[in-house]
Amino acid sequence: MKILFVIPICLSLILSSYAQKPEPCKSPPLLEGALTVFMPGHHLRVFEKFSYDAYGQNIRVLAAGKEGNQTFFVDRLLLFREGVNYEIHYHNQTCIKTALKDQFRHIGVPHDAHFLHQFVLGSSSIQGQGLLVNNWNGTAQETKEPYLLTFTAFGCVPLYTLEFTPQGELDLMTSFFDLVEGIEDPDVFIPPSFCDSVEVLPAKEVAQARSFIDLL
Amino acid sequence: MKILFVIPICLSLILSSYAQKPEPCKSPPLLEGALTVFMPGHHLRVFEKFSYDAYGQNIRVLAAGKEGNQTFFVDRLLLFREGVNYEIHYHNQTCIKTALKDQFRHIGVPHDAHFLHQFVLGSSSIQGQGLLVNNWNGTAQETKEPYLLTFTAFGCVPLYTLEFTPQGELDLMTSFFDLVEGIEDPDVFIPPSFCDSVEVLPAKEVAQARSFIDLL
Repeated sequence: MKILFVIPICLSLILSSYAQKPEPCKSPPLLEGALTVFMPGHHLRVFEKFSYDAYGQNIRVLAAGKEGNQTFFVDRLLLFREGVNYEIHYHNQTCIKTALKDQFRHIGVPHDAHFLHQFVLGSSSIQGQGLLVNNWNGTAQETKEPYLLTFTAFGCVPLYTLEFTPQGELDLMTSFFDLVEGIEDPDVFIPPSFCDSVEVLPAKEVAQARSFIDLL
Repeated sequence: MKILFVIPICLSLILSSYAQKPEPCKSPPLLEGALTVFMPGHHLRVFEKFSYDAYGQNIRVLAAGKEGNQTFFVDRLLLFREGVNYEIHYHNQTCIKTALKDQFRHIGVPHDAHFLHQFVLGSSSIQGQGLLVNNWNGTAQETKEPYLLTFTAFGCVPLYTLEFTPQGELDLMTSFFDLVEGIEDPDVFIPPSFCDSVEVLPAKEVAQARSFIDLL
């Protein structure tokens, strides 16, 4: 008779221990927020406000940055299903459209990433003073360069991505913050009317985009 | 008559707007956890487990690190009231005691730090997916070097400290994690008996410690 009690208990213990090992994950499909990009090798710092729609495969990003002594500002709309990259200049009502060949990629932890460890940013003693996060590492498929990712343990929300050169030097660091789930204004993914009659130019001859960040 | 309603409403609006401006703060007086230190200029990486007692003015720290190709491990007990710095070697039951002249400093945001901005690390949409934090900057009193601090908005828990050279290059970065309030084993602040008979050497001729981190 006892065995009837023991088997379910053992099974639930096995299942709960499996459940505790974090698995690669996809971030929420609708996200808005901000990020900073730092590329020490290029003396590049960028601040971006973005809207991300994994259902419609659309990304809108306003980027302001500094490369060396040059500052820049870009308003970009990436419509992956349509295959067009819009560079929008509201101040003079112009638009540059280029073909977008890249596949849409979800924000998330790649399926072949390796779980490193779980930790609390800050304190776990009192609610609101800490955040449970997971660290992952791996090697980018295209470039074979190592990366390190920090995502929240609950909800798979991105916090940091670091990419390194094969020599182990920091190549690119991205920090995400002020994220909210959902799209406040779905119009952000609709190109302005002054883009309608603009011809789509062939895709730029740039190095293959490696990640969500590169596409921005 | 209306003025009797208007005055308290104006007062409460003024007070609530004051309350929302973050103020420099002290971290919880009893903290245990881990931190990493990265000094790119010295090719130095250190991982530390520490116990911090601001009531008794005691710090215990186990540090393991790599400077260039050299690895090191240090077990250090800092008793500020007694004015002694213990370097403890359990493996051969030896102890080096040096005079500790530095004043105890609380972990926290210095009173003259400048509030930069408040943001959410991760997402504020769902509980457990984000952390409300404040960024502060300022100039270290002794070295006149600029710093940037990230502390939780609630509880003043340290997350990151960055120190820069006067040229704006990153000098030192500290990340705190897995913190808990309280001291699990108060014995960590009691030197082992094999230290009792050891003579206290004069303080080392080192550059003035600038912060909590330097003292570790």
